Order: sequence, then C-alpha cells, then structure tokens
Amino acid sequence: MSMHSHPAAVIGASGYTGLELTRLLARHPHLRLASLYSDRWSDEVAGSRVPLDGPAAALRYRPLAEGERADAEVVFLATPAEVSADLAPKLLAKGARVVDLSGAFRLEDPAAYPAWYGFAHPAPALLAEARYGLPELARGKLAGARLVTNPGCYATSIALALAPLVKAGLGLSGGIAVTGLSGVSGAGRKASEDYSFVEVADDLRAYRLGKHQHVPEIEQTVARYAGACGPISFTPVLVPIRRGILATITIRLEGAPPAGLADALRAAYADEPFVRVLAPDKVNVKDVLHTNRCHVGLAVDARAGVVVAVSAIDNLVKGAAGQAIQAANAALGWPETTGLDLLGG
Amino acid sequence: MSMHSHPAAVIGASGYTGLELTRLLARHPHLRLASLYSDRWSDEVAGSRVPLDGPAAALRYRPLAEGERADAEVVFLATPAEVSADLAPKLLAKGARVVDLSGAFRLEDPAAYPAWYGFAHPAPALLAEARYGLPELARGKLAGARLVTNPGCYATSIALALAPLVKAGLGLSGGIAVTGLSGVSGAGRKASEDYSFVEVADDLRAYRLGKHQHVPEIEQTVARYAGACGPISFTPVLVPIRRGILATITIRLEGAPPAGLADALRAAYADEPFVRVLAPDKVNVKDVLHTNRCHVGLAVDARAGVVVAVSAIDNLVKGAAGQAIQAANAALGWPETTGLDLLGG
Amino acid sequence: MSMHSHPAAVIGASGYTGLELTRLLARHPHLRLASLYSDRWSDEVAGSRVPLDGPAAALRYRPLAEGERADAEVVFLATPAEVSADLAPKLLAKGARVVDLSGAFRLEDPAAYPAWYGFAHPAPALLAEARYGLPELARGKLAGARLVTNPGCYATSIALALAPLVKAGLGLSGGIAVTGLSGVSGAGRKASEDYSFVEVADDLRAYRLGKHQHVPEIEQTVARYAGACGPISFTPVLVPIRRGILATITIRLEGAPPAGLADALRAAYADEPFVRVLAPDKVNVKDVLHTNRCHVGLAVDARAGVVVAVSAIDNLVKGAAGQAIQAANAALGWPETTGLDLLGG
Amino acid sequence: MSMHSHPAAVIGASGYTGLELTRLLARHPHLRLASLYSDRWSDEVAGSRVPLDGPAAALRYRPLAEGERADAEVVFLATPAEVSADLAPKLLAKGARVVDLSGAFRLEDPAAYPAWYGFAHPAPALLAEARYGLPELARGKLAGARLVTNPGCYATSIALALAPLVKAGLGLSGGIAVTGLSGVSGAGRKASEDYSFVEVADDLRAYRLGKHQHVPEIEQTVARYAGACGPISFTPVLVPIRRGILATITIRLEGAPPAGLADALRAAYADEPFVRVLAPDKVNVKDVLHTNRCHVGLAVDARAGVVVAVSAIDNLVKGAAGQAIQAANAALGWPETTGLDLLGG
Repeated sequence: MSMHSHPAAVIGASGYTGLELTRLLARHPHLRLASLYSDRWSDEVAGSRVPLDGPAAALRYRPLAEGERADAEVVFLATPAEVSADLAPKLLAKGARVVDLSGAFRLEDPAAYPAWYGFAHPAPALLAEARYGLPELARGKLAGARLVTNPGCYATSIALALAPLVKAGLGLSGGIAVTGLSGVSGAGRKASEDYSFVEVADDLRAYRLGKHQHVPEIEQTVARYAGACGPISFTPVLVPIRRGILATITIRLEGAPPAGLADALRAAYADEPFVRVLAPDKVNVKDVLHTNRCHVGLAVDARAGVVVAVSAIDNLVKGAAGQAIQAANAALGWPETTGLDLLGG
Repeated sequence: MSMHSHPAAVIGASGYTGLELTRLLARHPHLRLASLYSDRWSDEVAGSRVPLDGPAAALRYRPLAEGERADAEVVFLATPAEVSADLAPKLLAKGARVVDLSGAFRLEDPAAYPAWYGFAHPAPALLAEARYGLPELARGKLAGARLVTNPGCYATSIALALAPLVKAGLGLSGGIAVTGLSGVSGAGRKASEDYSFVEVADDLRAYRLGKHQHVPEIEQTVARYAGACGPISFTPVLVPIRRGILATITIRLEGAPPAGLADALRAAYADEPFVRVLAPDKVNVKDVLHTNRCHVGLAVDARAGVVVAVSAIDNLVKGAAGQAIQAANAALGWPETTGLDLLGG
Repeated sequence: MSMHSHPAAVIGASGYTGLELTRLLARHPHLRLASLYSDRWSDEVAGSRVPLDGPAAALRYRPLAEGERADAEVVFLATPAEVSADLAPKLLAKGARVVDLSGAFRLEDPAAYPAWYGFAHPAPALLAEARYGLPELARGKLAGARLVTNPGCYATSIALALAPLVKAGLGLSGGIAVTGLSGVSGAGRKASEDYSFVEVADDLRAYRLGKHQHVPEIEQTVARYAGACGPISFTPVLVPIRRGILATITIRLEGAPPAGLADALRAAYADEPFVRVLAPDKVNVKDVLHTNRCHVGLAVDARAGVVVAVSAIDNLVKGAAGQAIQAANAALGWPETTGLDLLGG
Repeated sequence: MSMHSHPAAVIGASGYTGLELTRLLARHPHLRLASLYSDRWSDEVAGSRVPLDGPAAALRYRPLAEGERADAEVVFLATPAEVSADLAPKLLAKGARVVDLSGAFRLEDPAAYPAWYGFAHPAPALLAEARYGLPELARGKLAGARLVTNPGCYATSIALALAPLVKAGLGLSGGIAVTGLSGVSGAGRKASEDYSFVEVADDLRAYRLGKHQHVPEIEQTVARYAGACGPISFTPVLVPIRRGILATITIRLEGAPPAGLADALRAAYADEPFVRVLAPDKVNVKDVLHTNRCHVGLAVDARAGVVVAVSAIDNLVKGAAGQAIQAANAALGWPETTGLDLLGG
C-alpha cells in the first residue's frame, strides 16, 4: 500500500465538519484528497480556505450537485441528512465506499425517521446495511463496510460513557438523565441571528428538550452493545465555545451501587487508543480539543442513589471528522489511528 | 422614611459579590452606603473601583478587621463562611441587622457543617434564628428578621424551579438529577491558575460532583416549602461566561405526569415581580443578566418518564447581591423591589 | 415638570441600539416610553423582549413603516442612515424633536455622503440645522435643538481623547494613527455568517481600513472644537466581545512634547460627569460597560516621538443610546445626567 | 538520518510555550523528546498533561534545577530571560545546541538589557554569537548555529510585515505606529488576578505603552534586514482570546506612496512556506491558529498619507514553539518545514 494511494472525496466541504475532514484527510498517509464539493466556495482553491500544503492546496471546490459523480474510492458525506439519503445510494451504485456523517442512516428503524428527523426515509433498505461507525462500541461490523454511518456528536460522547455502565447492569429500566453541553459549531455553519456572536456569547440556553434526534441513536447504540437500554432523557444546552461537548449522565441506582464500576469502565477501554478513563473532575473539553479522544469519568453518589458519568469530546473530531476517518480506517483494514496522531490544542 | 436614611455597611466589599452589593446599595433609595471593608483595596476611594456618583464615591475602603465595629443599621457580609460565622454574632450584639451572603447560617443542622462546609459551627444557636432570605419561598419569616442568611446562587436557581414541582407531588422519593452550569464569578475573585482566562476559556469542566455544599441547602429549602424532598444529585459545571447560572433539573416520574404542572409553576409565581415562567427553550442567562430575575420553564418528556425544568439567574444579582437587598427590604418592611429596578444588559 | 410627562418614541427598537434606548428610556424620570417601532418584533409586547416593569412592559412593537406617524415629543431614530434621512424631515414637520442615531446628519458637507455613506443625501438642507450630540465637545449648540445627530461610536471614543490634544497643538498637520477595537454589537443585529459566534470567537480581524465612515466625522468634530485637524488614518478591528470600544491614538510629535498634556486633558474634562482621565493602562472596556462613561488616558513616548492616547466606551451607551439621552437632556434643558445614573457591570 | 534520532529536551515544559513545544516535538520526525523539565509538574508523566502517544507519553517531568544537566543534542529553553541567561552558557559548555525562547539573547547591545529587561546581562559575550531565529528575515546566519535566540511573539508578527516595507523605503525616519493585540497566553501561565477569566473576558486593555521589551528587538531586526529603521511606537493591548496576535502597523509616508508596495511584500515572501500575503481584511487570527503561519496584508491610505500593514500569527506557534523548531531545523540542516505540517484549527 503506497502513500496517498486511495482517492477520497468530501461532499459538503465548507461546513465545519467538511472543513475538519479536509484538514485531516490532507494529512492521511493512505487517503488522497481528490475532490471537494461545496456550493459556498464553488470554484475557489482549497488552499485559500484551509491551511493546506502540496497538491491538496490547489484543489478547486466544485458545486455540490456534481458530488454524485465523485470519482473516489471513499466518499465522505458532510451533508444534511436528506441530501445524504439521496446521494449515498448513487455513490454506492458507482462502487464507492461511503462514510456518511449525517443522521441519514443511523437509525435502523425507518419508522423512526419522520418523528425524529422530520422526513420519510427514501432508502430504507440501506438502513440494514449501514454499519455504525463507533469502533469502540461496534468495531466488529466495520471491516469491509461499504456504507458507514458516522455517529452523532452527542451520541458519541454519551454512548461511550454510558454503554459499559449499562452493560454492568445500570439504567436498564431507565432513570438515565443526560445534560449535554455543546459548542456552537455543533449547530453547523449558517447565517442566523440565533447563532450570532452577540446572541450566543455570555449566554447559556437549553433547546429541543427531550426531542433531540440523537436520543434514539444513543438508546439503539447502548442496547446493541449492552443488550438493553432504558429510555434516556436528554437536555441539550448551547454554550459559548466554538467546539467541544461535555455531557453529564446521571443514572439512578435501583439498590446499592454495584462494586467496581470504575474498573468496568477502565476495562472496557483498556486497549482503546482514543478513550481515556479519568477522575470525573479531570474530564474537560480543553484536553480533547483538536484530538480524536474521548475522556470519561464517573462518580458514585450513594447518598442520592445515583452514578454520574462525565464525558468530553471535540464535536468536530471524535464527534465527526476524526471518527469518520477512524471508521474508514477500520473499514479499509488500516490501524484505526492512521492519520489521527493529532496534537490537541 | 426619608431618602437614604438608613446606614448600611458592606464587609468584604472587593469580591465580586461585595462589588455588586456596592453598586446596588449606591442606588437604593432608603439605604445609605456608610462604610466598606476590604483588605485588597484598603484605603482606596470607592469611586476609583466602582462607577459611583455622589458621596458614596468618596468612601474609603477600610481593613476587613475593622468590620466588626461597623457602625451601620444593616451590615451585609460578603465574606467567607468562617469569617461570617465569627462576625455575625459580634455585629448582632452591637444591635446591627445582619444579612450574611455566605453559607455560615444556611443549614439548620449544625451537624451538617463539618461534612459540607469543612468546619464545626462556632455559633450553632444562631442557626435557629437565621431567616432564609429567599422571599419567594420563605417570605413569611423575613419581616423584622435580625439575621438574614442569603441563599446560595445554585440553591436559588434550583430551589425556585424545583419547590413548586415537589409541592405538586414530584420527586418526593428522589430521582432528582440536577446539572448546574455556572459562570466563573461564582468561584469568587482570586489569583488562581485554575480560574485564569487561558485555562477557563474554550473549556467546560464538572467539579465537586455530588459534594457541593448547596445540596443540603436545596433539599432543606424545598422540604420546608413542599413538606418533603427526596435526595438530589447535583453536578456543577464551570462554563466560560463571567456571570450567570443555568440549571437543568430532571425529575423522574413515578407514573403518568400529573396534569397542570406548568400551571402550578405559573400559579406559584403569578404575583412575584422577579420570577417569570417561560417556555423552557426561552429560559437563558442573557435575559436575566444584571437583573434580579429568575426565569424558569419546564418540559414533560412522557417517553422518558421525566419532567425537565430549566432555571436561569444572574449569580451575582438574584444569586447574591440583589437577593440580599430584596431580603433586606422584606426584613425592613419596604417593598421587595425597592432599589432593584435594574436594566439588564 | 412632572414625572414621565414627555412622550418618547423609538423607531428601530429591536436593534442593539434600539434595545438599549428602550431600557434606558424606561427609567428616565421625565421621558415616557410611548411607542416602539420594529418589524422584527411587530405586535409582540415589549416586556417579553426587554426586562421592563410597569406600563412600558405592555407596549406593543408596531411596524417600522408606521414610525413616520409617531405621536411623541421626542423621537429617537435607531434606523439605518438612509431610513433616518427619509424619516427625520417627516417627523420634524409634525413638530417632533428628533434624535437620530445613524450617520444621516453627521457630516455637514452633503458632498461627502456618496463617498463615505454610499448614497446622495436626500435632505441636505437639514445638515446645517442638525446639532452634533456630543455634549462634552459641542454642548453650546444643543440647547433647544430640534434635530440632534448622535455621534458614531468610534467617533465618540476617538474625538473625546483627541480633541483636547489637538487643541493643545498636536496633530494639526496629520500624523494621527488610530486603531479602534470594537465589540460585535457595533456591527448591528443581523443574520450573517461573518458575525456568527464560530467565525468571531477566538478571532481578531481588521476591516474597512482607511474607509470607515467615522473618519470624516472625527476630523470634522475635532476641527470644530480645536480649530483645525490633520487627516486621521483609522484601522478598525473586530474583537470577540459583545460590547465596548477601545481606541489607541498615536499622534506624531513635530518636536519636543508640549508640557502639561495630561493636565490639558484633565482640565478639558474637569467638570464633566461622564469623562474620566486616568493613567493609560487603567483605561479599559470593563470599567465603562453599561455606563455612559468615557475613560481616557495618555502616555508620552519621547523616544519614538509620539503621544499615545487610549479611550474606552460602551459602544451601546456612551457610543449610542446613553449619549442620545444625554444630548436629548441637553436639548430639553434638563441636567445631562438625568436618567443616566447607571450601575455598570 | 534515521527517524527520531536526535534527542531534544525542553526546559520550562509546563508553561504555554513549553507545552506547545512538547506537542510539536513529539511529532517531529528527526528530533526525539528525551527529557522535560518543570517544577509545576515535577514527577508527573507527560501523557497525563499533553495528548501524547508512544514513548513521549511516558516521560516524567523533572525539576527545573536539573535542567542544566540535560543530556540532549538540542535543548529548548522556555524559561524566563534571567533563567535562560544562566542556563544557556552551561548547556553550551556541555556541547548542546541551545534554542532559547526568552529574550535573554535577543538584543545585541548588552547595555539595552537593564532598561528593557530590568537586569544586567550576565553573559554579554554570547549576545554576539546568538543567531536570531527568524528565518524569513535572517536565514543566512542560522545554518550550524549553536545558540539560537528565538524572536518574541510581537516582534515576529510586526517585523515580518514591516521589514520589507522599510526595505522599500518607508519609515526610515520614524512615523511607525504599531498597535499589537495579543491573546492572554502571551502573558504566560500564572496564578494572577489580573489574568483571571472574570477580569479578562469581555474586556480590552492597553499595557506597557511605549515600554514593551519587543520594541528594540523589532527595530534591530528591521534595521539588520533593511539597513535602517526609524523608531517605532508600540501599544500592546490585551484581548480576550487564548492565543493569537494581530498587529496593525501604520507608517507615515513622506510623500506620495511608492508604487508596488504590495508587490514588494509579495516578492519578499514568494518562496516562503510560512508567510502569506493577503488583502488586509483577509488577515485574521483564526486562519493562523495552531499553524506556523504568518499572514500579512497592507492598504495604502493616500488621503491620510499612510500605509497600514496588518499581520497575524499564533503567538504560541510562529510566535514561539513553531518558530523555534523552524529555526532548529535551519540550524541542523533540515527543511524548515520539518515537523511543522500543522492542521490549523
């Protein structure tokens, strides 16, 4: 396998996720950035938008509509769910391997789409084929995957902390209360008064209480891993940082706390290069920024009868572009860390 | 009652709470800022530190140690709990009315102090006399109070949202999971690497999980108001804003959600000038900044079997200095809004 | 003169300047908030948008187009320059006193409008009548003014520091280099990717170098006050704060620095309630936030042959709404500080 | 030359510069992180503080005092100037190559140290030997250098924009007014109320006007490159961002602006991998964050008789750690970009 030998395309390259994918792919030793699609920057050179060197810098963004003809071995879709649902079948038909970063293929039940995503799924048959790209919890099915559905950012941070605890017997009948704090890039790039600096800075606000589309994804992911999962209540909060997620996960105990919970968590991730188990007050956003890491920790509060887990990721890396590359590595048979030796910052 | 006729002192005037008290007292129509105590700014004129006009601007900060001899009708203690516990009896003995903004007199059980505050209480007899200065939930006992114990900032925001819901029958046996997000001024003013700009900006971190000293205060306050209160789990999170608190409060339902919860909340605060009940995604920090308001809202998530309440205050106003003045107004027989017609910002 | 006896209207009430005007007018003892015009919030009640009490809270925003029929003694225009240029003559014809916060009437030379503002002035005759609402530098002409043209935010901060120095003999032939740092609310409220949180936070960027429309306004203001003023070079920079301006003004000396420059500055503002002269490294944004103050300071750098002045204001108060009320007070014969005893924050 | 074959040490590894050096060195293909010195983290493993992989993660910080015995081919000093002045001779005597990131060896005139740095230089003989590590302006002397003195962060950003313009004939007799905006990491890591989040956020403040120690460094650097340089006036401003510098440089023209200034700037950096010449309003901090790039631009303001240049760097990368590695690469004969293919972010 020679250097940069596998052409890759990014469709939706000017959003925050697409931008991060572009940065990361430019340094991947085996994937070669072959084409970039974006209406916003159509016809501009990539080097004027991203700090790229070499041939990648000279690539020109092409209109999104040309994306379905992308001539690449791996195509990353950083497009809205409805666009991805339309593009993926066309690209698969052309023989490309597709890593979709939207929610278009995350839920296995097509009937869940109208309620959580607001549209009827146009390609329900693909839902069964799509492999969930969270290697730490679903590695087994990724090798050779044609269609990888990349997890949501909240779902990644929450499922990684929660799944081993549910497997250890917690929260099977519910009592899982999650508050998720997200930086503003999680809302995507858009011209909107709601996400303007003056409206967001110095502020905190909850949104979409109990209605966030990552809820069924988390429950499905945890249940696949742990065998079952009670319903989760989820309250997302917008906080004035550019990137990063911190989730607090409070799980009600039915009786005395099981012994060895922290050990169970540590054991689950002992061999994982990207997950670290720390004391819960050592888990923070800053230490995972610009890395593909997830930091998790837990505290048992016997007085209140709960276990509280805390989890942190960079929503654009482990919550999106980094994880997409990790999953692509797994699908293509490379070490998952390939191209992800990130510095942090 | 003539204008500015009642002399008031602030001990601990250079902390963020003391500073806010100074600002507010300078505009109070009946209280007159008579003396300010601070070691940090000892001998400086107040006008060089706070945008004051008139005689207040010419006041000089005096050393903290002189505070116990403060010659004022009302003395506001913006000092650490151990200092307040020492000063309050001396000032009461001099005949002053004392409003203490620390936790020194918040818990009625002296035995709770070593565990939650880390010191044995030196004046346990005063705990029974102290009146809790959260007028919306404990107004009845404030008239004429000699010693007002001002609520904690987290406790204020959480109890105001929670108490009417518990009174309506929720959370009596527990299942109350709270995440509280606080701006950095909540940690006080200090030279500390942990609270430096570079460490805090762009970051989120949880701290003191299940161990925050506001936990017993909230449980006690809600129980007094609602008759009972299950144990609360509380996870505080430090967020990069200067001031403000947003709390998310998830209460597990035992069965179907009781009808009319939002109405119960609205009814509880229908006549309150400082509490507004809004849709939960309209509750945010920005709208309460620099005001004495608390905004609360709730959502019922029947699928997950929970009610989620959201609450926002300015930790330095409704969570500290504004509430102290509101309670002092109540103790002195003035309308609670006196001097608190704040602009926001 | 009885309380709240003079009806006032705000046209363009939902922009950041209009919002601040609303807040301030609600507390003005003689002006009564009588009507608010905004398309964005048309038909909403003001109390749901601004922390108002009393009758002002019940006002409903009306469509902007109805503004020209505003029935008020004083009308504040917080509208774009072209809208103000159209509205002001109509309102004056109805007998209202007009305070315009846009640039529509700031330049005395109609010929300057196409170059600096991008439109030919539709009412050039009014330019001679408009009185510049910067009381500290142009108080003499404000008493009884029918049309007050409120200064720009950058112009206020820069002219207040510069004018007394030019009067003392500096910068008459130029050599005045200004860098102005502004918070994002200076760009107004708008849905724009350029001013989104993710684009602005953690960033600094210069814009409109040498082309900002406040340049001729500053030169004109200083020349009126000091008799002459050399050309000014001006580089505005967008910084990630919500509100506030800090300007650094470097003036080249022709020879040795004149003695007593700081004294000249202090003397110019000795009796001014809103301007403070401080050591230059004590001038900052935080101390003037939410106040109508301007803080200025200067340093002589004999080695480099320059004087450097520093100036700070809150762009929405002294740079807009506060100054508009100060000027209205002057026009109406009230003390300029009326309604402007602000707390800061 | 095999991979990671040259051992490198960082002394002062827990400051923000030391931390960035650690991150960068861990990815350098030829340098191998061999030892780290820090009193703050003495005896902790590096992997618990920096997102490192492989052997570097297992390194333990050693006490600073042991640094003088560092057994490495290249030693990076991220220590205060006085500490560097003491350590460098000892390490050179041991045969190490030293890259000093403090100001200890930046000025060629020992007599300048008391005035600008506050101490008499203890090793004045080394000032002549030290090679200034700004390759774009002083590459010629770097090959084989034993002692590299790494430029200051402000000096880097300002000299890179200014030097080619002075070479083109501007500013020879002065009239150079610089305002430099710096993120808070520029002040170093320390427990200080002045740099606490609450004091810095939402604020802007100027400091050390005309007295910053980078002034003589800039003048010396530009004069070496351009043959002469007039005195520079410099006003640094602290802004609420974690990292990054934006400088505005206003140069008074003596007559008509020379033609082709932008071309001169572009020509100066045509072959430089790390310097980009852009339109001045396209120069911003965000685009250079976490990269070793400097972006510069200029505007001619003929009306005001000035040229304004704008320059942006990441103070911790091109302003410190990245440039140190670039210069070490030059000294050791490797391509300057080695190990500096950074992603940005």
